[in-house]
Amino acid sequence: MSTQPSSVRPVLIGGDWRAAQALHGHFRAEDPAQGVAIGPEFPVSGAADVQAALAAAVAVADELAAMPPERIAAFLDSYADAIDADVDTLVALAHAETALPKEPRLAKVELPRTSGQLRQAAQAVRSYAWTQPVIDTVAGLRAHYAPLAKPVLVFGPNNFPFAFNAIAGSDFASAIAARNPVIAKAHPSHPATSERLAQLAHTALRQAGLPAAAVQMLYHFDHALGAALAGDARLGAIGFTGSRAGGLALKAAADAAGVPAYVELSSVNPVFLLPGVLAERGTALAQEFFASCTMGSGQFCTNPGIVVVPNGAAGDAFVEAATAHFAAAAPNVLFSRGVQEHLERSLATLRAAGATCLTGGASAGPGYRFQPTLLSVDAETFLREPRALQTEAFGPVGLLLRATDAAQMAELARAFEGNLTGTLYGARDSSDDAAWAHIAHALRPRVGRLIGNKMPTGVAVSPAMNHGGPYPSTGHPGFTAVGMPAAIRRFAALHSYDNVPEPQLPTELRDHNPGGVARLIDGHWCIDDIGNHGDHKE
Amino acid sequence: MSTQPSSVRPVLIGGDWRAAQALHGHFRAEDPAQGVAIGPEFPVSGAADVQAALAAAVAVADELAAMPPERIAAFLDSYADAIDADVDTLVALAHAETALPKEPRLAKVELPRTSGQLRQAAQAVRSYAWTQPVIDTVAGLRAHYAPLAKPVLVFGPNNFPFAFNAIAGSDFASAIAARNPVIAKAHPSHPATSERLAQLAHTALRQAGLPAAAVQMLYHFDHALGAALAGDARLGAIGFTGSRAGGLALKAAADAAGVPAYVELSSVNPVFLLPGVLAERGTALAQEFFASCTMGSGQFCTNPGIVVVPNGAAGDAFVEAATAHFAAAAPNVLFSRGVQEHLERSLATLRAAGATCLTGGASAGPGYRFQPTLLSVDAETFLREPRALQTEAFGPVGLLLRATDAAQMAELARAFEGNLTGTLYGARDSSDDAAWAHIAHALRPRVGRLIGNKMPTGVAVSPAMNHGGPYPSTGHPGFTAVGMPAAIRRFAALHSYDNVPEPQLPTELRDHNPGGVARLIDGHWCIDDIGNHGDHKE
Repeated sequence: MSTQPSSVRPVLIGGDWRAAQALHGHFRAEDPAQGVAIGPEFPVSGAADVQAALAAAVAVADELAAMPPERIAAFLDSYADAIDADVDTLVALAHAETALPKEPRLAKVELPRTSGQLRQAAQAVRSYAWTQPVIDTVAGLRAHYAPLAKPVLVFGPNNFPFAFNAIAGSDFASAIAARNPVIAKAHPSHPATSERLAQLAHTALRQAGLPAAAVQMLYHFDHALGAALAGDARLGAIGFTGSRAGGLALKAAADAAGVPAYVELSSVNPVFLLPGVLAERGTALAQEFFASCTMGSGQFCTNPGIVVVPNGAAGDAFVEAATAHFAAAAPNVLFSRGVQEHLERSLATLRAAGATCLTGGASAGPGYRFQPTLLSVDAETFLREPRALQTEAFGPVGLLLRATDAAQMAELARAFEGNLTGTLYGARDSSDDAAWAHIAHALRPRVGRLIGNKMPTGVAVSPAMNHGGPYPSTGHPGFTAVGMPAAIRRFAALHSYDNVPEPQLPTELRDHNPGGVARLIDGHWCIDDIGNHGDHKE
Repeated sequence: MSTQPSSVRPVLIGGDWRAAQALHGHFRAEDPAQGVAIGPEFPVSGAADVQAALAAAVAVADELAAMPPERIAAFLDSYADAIDADVDTLVALAHAETALPKEPRLAKVELPRTSGQLRQAAQAVRSYAWTQPVIDTVAGLRAHYAPLAKPVLVFGPNNFPFAFNAIAGSDFASAIAARNPVIAKAHPSHPATSERLAQLAHTALRQAGLPAAAVQMLYHFDHALGAALAGDARLGAIGFTGSRAGGLALKAAADAAGVPAYVELSSVNPVFLLPGVLAERGTALAQEFFASCTMGSGQFCTNPGIVVVPNGAAGDAFVEAATAHFAAAAPNVLFSRGVQEHLERSLATLRAAGATCLTGGASAGPGYRFQPTLLSVDAETFLREPRALQTEAFGPVGLLLRATDAAQMAELARAFEGNLTGTLYGARDSSDDAAWAHIAHALRPRVGRLIGNKMPTGVAVSPAMNHGGPYPSTGHPGFTAVGMPAAIRRFAALHSYDNVPEPQLPTELRDHNPGGVARLIDGHWCIDDIGNHGDHKE
């Protein structure tokens, strides 16, 4: 603990950029391609900052919950515009801190996705779609989803400096759309990117006239402080995307305090290649798998970590082609030394459990690089050590799982833990259909998103997306972290009104429909106003 | 642990009524009006029964998840018919074990509500309403809620022998509607009622051709076994209604294993009487409050446990009239000695924290009775000891909380923990409107259901009901335990299909709408089939 040197960047608390109090240290970002520190010093916050942010958020929670939806939507839209207008600076900062490609990834894919996501949240706010109004005129009951009216604590991950950033990503947009204050915990691997986003958010917030403490940001604090904050009953919820160990520690703290914890943890995203499709286009699939598994240096939640390949000539040809792709590729830059070390440990676990290395397998330099790596294991070994062999290797690493036939592929499907995604590839003719149905039946309850004939790395921001899945891929099987309006509902409470006079009801539950949202009225979905039915009061 | 005597009733495991294995003891029901044991001996199950039930449920979970919805609906309907046809026997058993009145409560209210709830669940199954289909034809994504495909463990409470019974109530109906096997843990205070219901369920299950282990029942097991079972990762979810201590212990075990725990705990259900309505009809309100607070001997989750009454003449008159009602009433029969002892402890806590007793306050005989009891406390004392003075007194006990004025009533509203309900009474003229808005704003985020001008004890089975609320009234603010189809969603997983060929999709996500359910298609709710849009695949 020390006094903050004047060169350390300020934190955003209570509506102001102010010096961190009683800070626990400071840190700099790194250029992971070279392994050298870059940019200014950022603070590691102590308890004083954390408590100040929490108190400020609690103090404005009721006011924010009562804000007109239009003002929330205006903030989200103008923040999105500001992000789009700042593309050059944001992309330069994020590229320097993550080594992710400026184009297409950062400038053409992730940044537009981020601003688009904020706009979709704004649209859900204006249409009231996330509130799901239900009206029973006979019983005199009306219900909808409403703000928690408590702060939401969001932890951003290392792998999306924009789209999952704690101050700009899906959790942020969702929590704000539900009119809850957000305390953003930026990821320390891209602090300057987060600072720039927070500056844009701060300006947009003031312009929209929202409470100043509705959006706050800290750069870093230690695990103990994080757990203490996550377990504070004044919180409404936490959103977390990151490692399994970190997420489970926060979830345990939150659970004990009755705070819903939406944690997105790890996933190996099994891919099943059926015999027919391998015979049909195995070589093309090897290229497709290689591209998906090494995109973003393999640092995706939905990276295809395990590919189930039947034995036989077509399977062998796929393995040979895939191995050649991985072997020919240069080492990939990872986000940090921490990611590199974690990947080394994961690989050691997989090998100790019986996986053999076909190509790659080692760290490289300069900076934090890792060889594109392909491992292989047979079904019997996997079924003997299912837990260790499902260790997530966060990086450009794939494990090929060889099966005797389609029947064994279904047995393997049943051995998987909860995953975000599960993928099947089948032949264009109907030769794989029976096996598809059989394996899909086994795989379906174990994954959040079942994918056909394409790799899992693309996550569309759609109302029909599920970026979630059974434990331990996330903490709850009923919610998605991506896709409006569904993702908003994580940060909402169900509110029923029983025999409450119409003028005292929220706008979207009154007789007049404010428009845009279909309401379930007496068992029928409709967008009409309530006419004569409106007088049903006990 | 002992061998089961032949006179001990069997448990329902794996489709058969069979002798409990390695049982931990046995018990009999009691007539709480006289405090004497009645009926046969029922087993206290040991680990062997618990593990056998879990294994049997796991073994049929996939099969049940794949069942045609019509067969599930047929089971729910025929079970409902069987309950209606068995009214005389069921009511006689429940009356003997609970001392609840045969009429109207058991025969005319609770039993029809129970069969009606099963039929509403059947209707939600047939219409697919609980699955909430969402289709994005442009992105090629389709999503809905689907079975957990894992067993659901349901703990029934003591206070609703039918409507919340683990083998017949809302949790049971919801979990089965979502095509999950149920392991019912009956409440030991009404074992013969539960046995009779389980017999009816068993017969209906066989007639419907559902897997025999889809419905199982144990009568009793100790806390340690309950926690071990709730914390078994093979479970899909737990549903619990009961005491705070019991529910939180089960929730902690479930949380640690990643098992969603839907626990309905305790609630004091604050009622705010505004100055205008007290002047208008304070005497009538005193009668209304007395009736609600002592109905069912006050053993309701939504019992009005705290009434906030302004100081002044009208408030004093209300207190005087209410006290007279409570003082004139005979002692109420409670469910058990355990309830009686718990109530004595709760009262001691309230008194120690500063509440004074206006009338009643003591246990009585024969059996397990308690005097209708009214306590009073001033606002300053309450705000000094808010936690102790919100102790739930489960029985015919009300606490009057005296406030200086409407402004202080809003301050008091903010001091309440999460509750199932919060109620406001206002004058028929507009004299209370401003105070109403002010207090409702403070109370709204702290309760699941906001009620106007009636007591909270009625819980309609409606799609717009919320029988839930913020922690610690329940474990999650986003779910209701009552009301179809919403209650079903607790036991469902979100499933997305990404680029999956149409014939491999679940019925309600295919281009042809099976009918009955409105689907969100490309941002619009509609009941139409998908026409030319159906070919959008990547």
